[in-house]
Amino acid sequence: MSNRMWGGRFASGPDAIMEEINASIGFDKRLYTQDIAGSIAHANMLETVGILTRDDKDAIVSGLETVRGEIERGEFTFSRALEDIHMNVESRLKELIGEPAGRLHTARSRNDQVATDFKLYVRDCLDTLVAQVETLQKVLIDKAEAEAETVMPGFTHLQSAQPVTFGHHMLAYVEMLARDKGRLLDARARLNESPLGAAALAGTSFPIDRHMTAEALGFDRPTANSLDAVSDRDFILETLSAASICAMHLSRLSEELVIWSSAQFAFVRLSDKFSTGSSIMPQKRNPDAAELIRAKVARIFSAFSSLLIVMKGLPLAYSKDMQEDKEVAFDALDNFSLSLAAMTGMMSDLTVNREKMAAAAGAGFSTATDLADWLVRAVNVPFRDAHHITGRAVAAAEAKGCGLEGLTIEDFKEIDERITSQVFKVLGVDNSVKSRTSFGGTAPANVKEQVKLWRARLGA
Amino acid sequence: MSNRMWGGRFASGPDAIMEEINASIGFDKRLYTQDIAGSIAHANMLETVGILTRDDKDAIVSGLETVRGEIERGEFTFSRALEDIHMNVESRLKELIGEPAGRLHTARSRNDQVATDFKLYVRDCLDTLVAQVETLQKVLIDKAEAEAETVMPGFTHLQSAQPVTFGHHMLAYVEMLARDKGRLLDARARLNESPLGAAALAGTSFPIDRHMTAEALGFDRPTANSLDAVSDRDFILETLSAASICAMHLSRLSEELVIWSSAQFAFVRLSDKFSTGSSIMPQKRNPDAAELIRAKVARIFSAFSSLLIVMKGLPLAYSKDMQEDKEVAFDALDNFSLSLAAMTGMMSDLTVNREKMAAAAGAGFSTATDLADWLVRAVNVPFRDAHHITGRAVAAAEAKGCGLEGLTIEDFKEIDERITSQVFKVLGVDNSVKSRTSFGGTAPANVKEQVKLWRARLGA
Amino acid sequence: MSNRMWGGRFASGPDAIMEEINASIGFDKRLYTQDIAGSIAHANMLETVGILTRDDKDAIVSGLETVRGEIERGEFTFSRALEDIHMNVESRLKELIGEPAGRLHTARSRNDQVATDFKLYVRDCLDTLVAQVETLQKVLIDKAEAEAETVMPGFTHLQSAQPVTFGHHMLAYVEMLARDKGRLLDARARLNESPLGAAALAGTSFPIDRHMTAEALGFDRPTANSLDAVSDRDFILETLSAASICAMHLSRLSEELVIWSSAQFAFVRLSDKFSTGSSIMPQKRNPDAAELIRAKVARIFSAFSSLLIVMKGLPLAYSKDMQEDKEVAFDALDNFSLSLAAMTGMMSDLTVNREKMAAAAGAGFSTATDLADWLVRAVNVPFRDAHHITGRAVAAAEAKGCGLEGLTIEDFKEIDERITSQVFKVLGVDNSVKSRTSFGGTAPANVKEQVKLWRARLGA
Amino acid sequence: MSNRMWGGRFASGPDAIMEEINASIGFDKRLYTQDIAGSIAHANMLETVGILTRDDKDAIVSGLETVRGEIERGEFTFSRALEDIHMNVESRLKELIGEPAGRLHTARSRNDQVATDFKLYVRDCLDTLVAQVETLQKVLIDKAEAEAETVMPGFTHLQSAQPVTFGHHMLAYVEMLARDKGRLLDARARLNESPLGAAALAGTSFPIDRHMTAEALGFDRPTANSLDAVSDRDFILETLSAASICAMHLSRLSEELVIWSSAQFAFVRLSDKFSTGSSIMPQKRNPDAAELIRAKVARIFSAFSSLLIVMKGLPLAYSKDMQEDKEVAFDALDNFSLSLAAMTGMMSDLTVNREKMAAAAGAGFSTATDLADWLVRAVNVPFRDAHHITGRAVAAAEAKGCGLEGLTIEDFKEIDERITSQVFKVLGVDNSVKSRTSFGGTAPANVKEQVKLWRARLGA
Repeated sequence: MSNRMWGGRFASGPDAIMEEINASIGFDKRLYTQDIAGSIAHANMLETVGILTRDDKDAIVSGLETVRGEIERGEFTFSRALEDIHMNVESRLKELIGEPAGRLHTARSRNDQVATDFKLYVRDCLDTLVAQVETLQKVLIDKAEAEAETVMPGFTHLQSAQPVTFGHHMLAYVEMLARDKGRLLDARARLNESPLGAAALAGTSFPIDRHMTAEALGFDRPTANSLDAVSDRDFILETLSAASICAMHLSRLSEELVIWSSAQFAFVRLSDKFSTGSSIMPQKRNPDAAELIRAKVARIFSAFSSLLIVMKGLPLAYSKDMQEDKEVAFDALDNFSLSLAAMTGMMSDLTVNREKMAAAAGAGFSTATDLADWLVRAVNVPFRDAHHITGRAVAAAEAKGCGLEGLTIEDFKEIDERITSQVFKVLGVDNSVKSRTSFGGTAPANVKEQVKLWRARLGA
Repeated sequence: MSNRMWGGRFASGPDAIMEEINASIGFDKRLYTQDIAGSIAHANMLETVGILTRDDKDAIVSGLETVRGEIERGEFTFSRALEDIHMNVESRLKELIGEPAGRLHTARSRNDQVATDFKLYVRDCLDTLVAQVETLQKVLIDKAEAEAETVMPGFTHLQSAQPVTFGHHMLAYVEMLARDKGRLLDARARLNESPLGAAALAGTSFPIDRHMTAEALGFDRPTANSLDAVSDRDFILETLSAASICAMHLSRLSEELVIWSSAQFAFVRLSDKFSTGSSIMPQKRNPDAAELIRAKVARIFSAFSSLLIVMKGLPLAYSKDMQEDKEVAFDALDNFSLSLAAMTGMMSDLTVNREKMAAAAGAGFSTATDLADWLVRAVNVPFRDAHHITGRAVAAAEAKGCGLEGLTIEDFKEIDERITSQVFKVLGVDNSVKSRTSFGGTAPANVKEQVKLWRARLGA
Repeated sequence: MSNRMWGGRFASGPDAIMEEINASIGFDKRLYTQDIAGSIAHANMLETVGILTRDDKDAIVSGLETVRGEIERGEFTFSRALEDIHMNVESRLKELIGEPAGRLHTARSRNDQVATDFKLYVRDCLDTLVAQVETLQKVLIDKAEAEAETVMPGFTHLQSAQPVTFGHHMLAYVEMLARDKGRLLDARARLNESPLGAAALAGTSFPIDRHMTAEALGFDRPTANSLDAVSDRDFILETLSAASICAMHLSRLSEELVIWSSAQFAFVRLSDKFSTGSSIMPQKRNPDAAELIRAKVARIFSAFSSLLIVMKGLPLAYSKDMQEDKEVAFDALDNFSLSLAAMTGMMSDLTVNREKMAAAAGAGFSTATDLADWLVRAVNVPFRDAHHITGRAVAAAEAKGCGLEGLTIEDFKEIDERITSQVFKVLGVDNSVKSRTSFGGTAPANVKEQVKLWRARLGA
Repeated sequence: MSNRMWGGRFASGPDAIMEEINASIGFDKRLYTQDIAGSIAHANMLETVGILTRDDKDAIVSGLETVRGEIERGEFTFSRALEDIHMNVESRLKELIGEPAGRLHTARSRNDQVATDFKLYVRDCLDTLVAQVETLQKVLIDKAEAEAETVMPGFTHLQSAQPVTFGHHMLAYVEMLARDKGRLLDARARLNESPLGAAALAGTSFPIDRHMTAEALGFDRPTANSLDAVSDRDFILETLSAASICAMHLSRLSEELVIWSSAQFAFVRLSDKFSTGSSIMPQKRNPDAAELIRAKVARIFSAFSSLLIVMKGLPLAYSKDMQEDKEVAFDALDNFSLSLAAMTGMMSDLTVNREKMAAAAGAGFSTATDLADWLVRAVNVPFRDAHHITGRAVAAAEAKGCGLEGLTIEDFKEIDERITSQVFKVLGVDNSVKSRTSFGGTAPANVKEQVKLWRARLGA
């Protein structure tokens, strides 16, 4: 009984079930803008090649614009009996303009129409997403500049390894996002061929001009094979795979934010706007947005998974299975966009606790590698031997209850008499990070240089 | 511009983004029945143990029933600012009854509340799904009985292998569905422990009676560990995994329906109710429902995938990531139920083309195995040698342009003089299937026996 | 050029490619024990029903035992030309005993043979895995008992929420593992039907006794439908889905171990045996095993994913696609078993830092909920009002730079004059956890009680 | 007992388990070529910048070449105690050349080393795969040319829709493969940055020249951020996602081959080389290779899935979880390459049954759309009205028991008097396909034109 809505809707018999499973208007109405744009381009082309008269074309275009206005103003009544957005729009057009409406569907079918609509929609999304990725990059670049000299522990295995700068850490994500942007742009470039005019599957005998409609809709060219045109969903698969990888990057940063926000780390503080409290524990500042972004990679990736499974083993050309492409894609793209927006907001507002980070950076013999490297450079011992000497130094410091910088020169001489007081220059955290000037290294100077380069690239 | 709704909603700034990503009322309002049932059970218990007065309890219960009525009649205004179904209901309760509403949340938190609500919801779904599986089994059993003697080619690799009966083929799916039902029932049994009263994560110091609320809500017992109670989502994971396997079974039958409905096979005819036509090709009878069911396994499985990925590596106890559980689960369970309903409708209405099947069953030397088996039985040659003799018989028949039953006794003697005219008894398709009486074999007698057993089990 | 082995092996032409993609002996040789056990059971049955003579049966059984010995001693030469384990064994049997070997394959085929072998193998794995799960449970129960009174912060969102006991935390995993064990046992029960004698797909006309072979191989009964018997892979799918959920639980504990092992938390110390060092940073104690277990859920789950995708839309009966079942299953089951073993070892050796945990448990106003609950109980304010009063107390403590227990009774009176000095009893961490005695709550007494129950259940 | 190898190997205690789970040499030895190439480039650079002497460098390079020879000749003993390929090689180098071996690891770590090795390996794979994709394209283009005029039914929903040419169908796959190749090349371009010299995570204070090693190893440039360099696995994720989509395309063609090979379709015949027989049913010609390719998309995709799940939520920089990247990637890339090779072989040898295809193409009123289009063109009725007239013609033909071309002009006049005998020109299958000359349409002339273009593009 509690599930009446869910369990009970099939009570009215098989016809209702068939309509329930078959109709797509519940979700494909989102494509109305693209559907009408495609129809207008098609009508204009039909007139140009002589299939439609000027008057019919004018009636159709004007009628379609009326339909668009009705939908935008919420005045349009969608009908499930008319199955999908294409039939809903055409049916209303017929009511509005009569006979010419029947001429619009010449030399096309719903198979090429839906491919066109969906491509246009995904292309719009890609443009938005690329802009969102850039916006997030800019926020991270600002953070990198502000924290170019802020030292923190660099972790491997969540254990302190060597000191790094927070700015450098931020720029690691800028690099990831640059690859993500590249993938999104590659997907857009590969997507940008027009299926319109492929008709049901075989092309048409009407003398249509597919290059004209392609151009009108901003495509680079028409698709070259009609069977492929109506059977292909690579464009959304590739988009979802790029989105999955980017969402994975966001999940890594989210995990770091959750850990850094814990009382034990306390490296950062999320703003009030991006924290939630608890109704009972006033000290709590839950990183809900970070957790949700961390989780959302799952459903973004699962949309890719879902659609790839749908397409597996599907014979050409169109099969109804392919109707399952839209709901998962809409959901994934919405959530991906939301994740980018939320991460951008969260990072903009983030406060860095430099003292906590610096204290942690210096703990745990984090400059042991610097000592070993110094031994190689200054004393010319092979690196593998330098390790062993360093190991003894760490043991001595542990025994003495201090860091490496707390050992005296006499302590060092006892370990290896070749060590001179020059060694102390490399044992401080600040000196350590400053010395990492190899290309791509963590030195503040490098960070500032990279920030400059990124600003130039992004025009920011 | 075309994506205003999608790309533009983040324009109003970070606060809006946080609310957008954080609020769950958009989807968890579906749990209102379960939420109110849980609150009523909790209130009754609080009175029994002396935490609530009789009057307060009565006010709360009556108020909650009013809220439920408002929601059912569509008169309730859900508020996103109140985040979720729990706060929406409690807030309205406060408006209706004042101070006592504030006493309801004693000794519980939203963490145990949402676990309780969701478990109750999934349990309702499981009950519905089990009933739907049984209904489909009954339809297949009817079909098996009606077609117990209908011969068809048994395929391996989609190549004719040996003749089988269509009834036997139907019963193969009844077996699969029986395992599916077993998995759903196991999931239900394992689910049926009440999290209510686990509170935020640690239990409570109030003298609550969790056994009482568990019993009131139809649970077998309360969960034994409060940290586990609020951190656990096994119940929906297990449900989705059982649903995935069952949906995979449905996808196999769907694929067969698509292939059998092709002009080249023409083994079955779907009813008008479960076919779609084409606006242009009147001969078309597209198996849309079968294709959609075949595809839907993808999103049902991907919901399992999504949620498992969300839960991977999540520290105890509740993390906000877990809010991602509901949307994918609702979508998967809806689509799974729809798939079962559509398959049931489609199979009820299916027409079998016995002539086509019989003709195909007899083609392609499909009784070669019968010949080999006869040689083992009647002539006592080892099976491996019987193969070679059979191979020569097939070659002879191919050369003569006939089936095995078209060879004369002289032809057979030339191949192996031990062959007698008794051999002809095993070469016909009908005799072949009739002879397969080993336990689980395809003989009509076996099919009828199994039908009887299944009817007894299902009370049908 | 560097990839000669990988890219170059197809140079030898199409025949080689076909053999490469087709042969399964490279991985299914692992099934030799099960294959030979199945053949022995089959031979014994064939004699009993009069299809084999006593002498032939004896020769076959003895020959098969010889083959098994050869394989175990590494003296057997596997041949890819013979495709799979079945043909390799039978071919060697023929060399060893001659003609009777050809009689073994009577009334069966490779289709039922491989299903039988693989089921027996998976059943063996399930038995091992169930034992491993229990072993891990016992280790956690020991830990729970030893740390029943050890307080630590209970986290939600990785933020301190309320104090809990470490023993209680351990028992949360014991609960999860109990559900895992239940799922593995359910999979075993459902698996335990014998496909042997289903033959190629249709059963057989030989008077075989499938109940006899089923019993000999430890199955509960033979499968009831021959088409289903050779088409079914539910048993490994269900096993992999149960393994995935359990591996997810292990990933959660692994994540906690990684976080708890960080310098910032320092709640636990992994033993040397389960840590790896760094060749350069002697202070490092990397939690490699925890990280690997955390990661391995991915490939265990992906094996389930892979096989479900393989089975999607596959028509009955056997298709070659199904040969893709074994490699992923072997890999997943090996890695799952390894994860259980490594977690068991790691947890056995774990050292708990009680001081660090206790200090963290008391920080951050973690007993704020206790204050609110006290107000409800002692002063009879509604819970929602108790929140607000508690909020003011936290603010006062923050202003004063102390914890809640650092406020004086005067401070409290100023906030709400109804507060008495009884309040101090609930503000300490130890008192807080002791008070959580509701069923399933975190109180040490509860933990000890649960430990006793678990020991009784597991006979440990 | 039967599982001694699998269940029993953990008997030797926890140390063994840790080694078992931790060591990677069992699979990463495959990277030896890349590892040695990277070390040689590193040594040369160290000499150039003055960190190594000429003599030391020469000893190192010569020693590494000796090691490579030993591995290639199978004379190298891999040690699990040395964990991975890096340590195995360096340890052997030490044995061979003594002290200078200890100087090789200066200014690098295993973190950047393994990233470099794996990138080089994946790059090699990508080059091989791109070549394999092109080879398959060429085979399909040859087929398309040979069958440019071969008519077959074009299917939607596996129902005959409109006639197409087999050549056109082949070219649809050429288009898909072109997108696949584009994705593989994009992945290669994005991969091609050198991590070498990023060291453990922070870069180094040695004056290394990362541009020099990048160039020596064929990279376009060094990576710009050391944290990203050692934390990044995008390159294999992107490769696997491109492979997944391509493998999905192969699965579609495989499904078609399986269906087309059935007795009921009989459109194509696979060669003996790419079929398997049955030991008992000599008529069988099982499409095993097609089935296996259809299945293999599952594990290729699941490798992507697995690795994405591993990377989800992983904090920077290197974590041991990332060691799980190689086994799944090796398996997926091997199987993808094998699938491409097997599909290439299978399609090369494929025989097309033109008569069967032509007969099927003409059945089922497949030119109904041509009639409707003719009505639009010749009689100027709106397309929607043309549908209805066509529907009546189909009904008349059905009643008469003939195809549309079997109706007389009188029959047509009765349906709509505007129809003239010109109509018969469009009703034949050959005329139908010839008329589909719109860009991308199925007309033989289009197919030949496309074949020419593809030959020019591929230089074939």
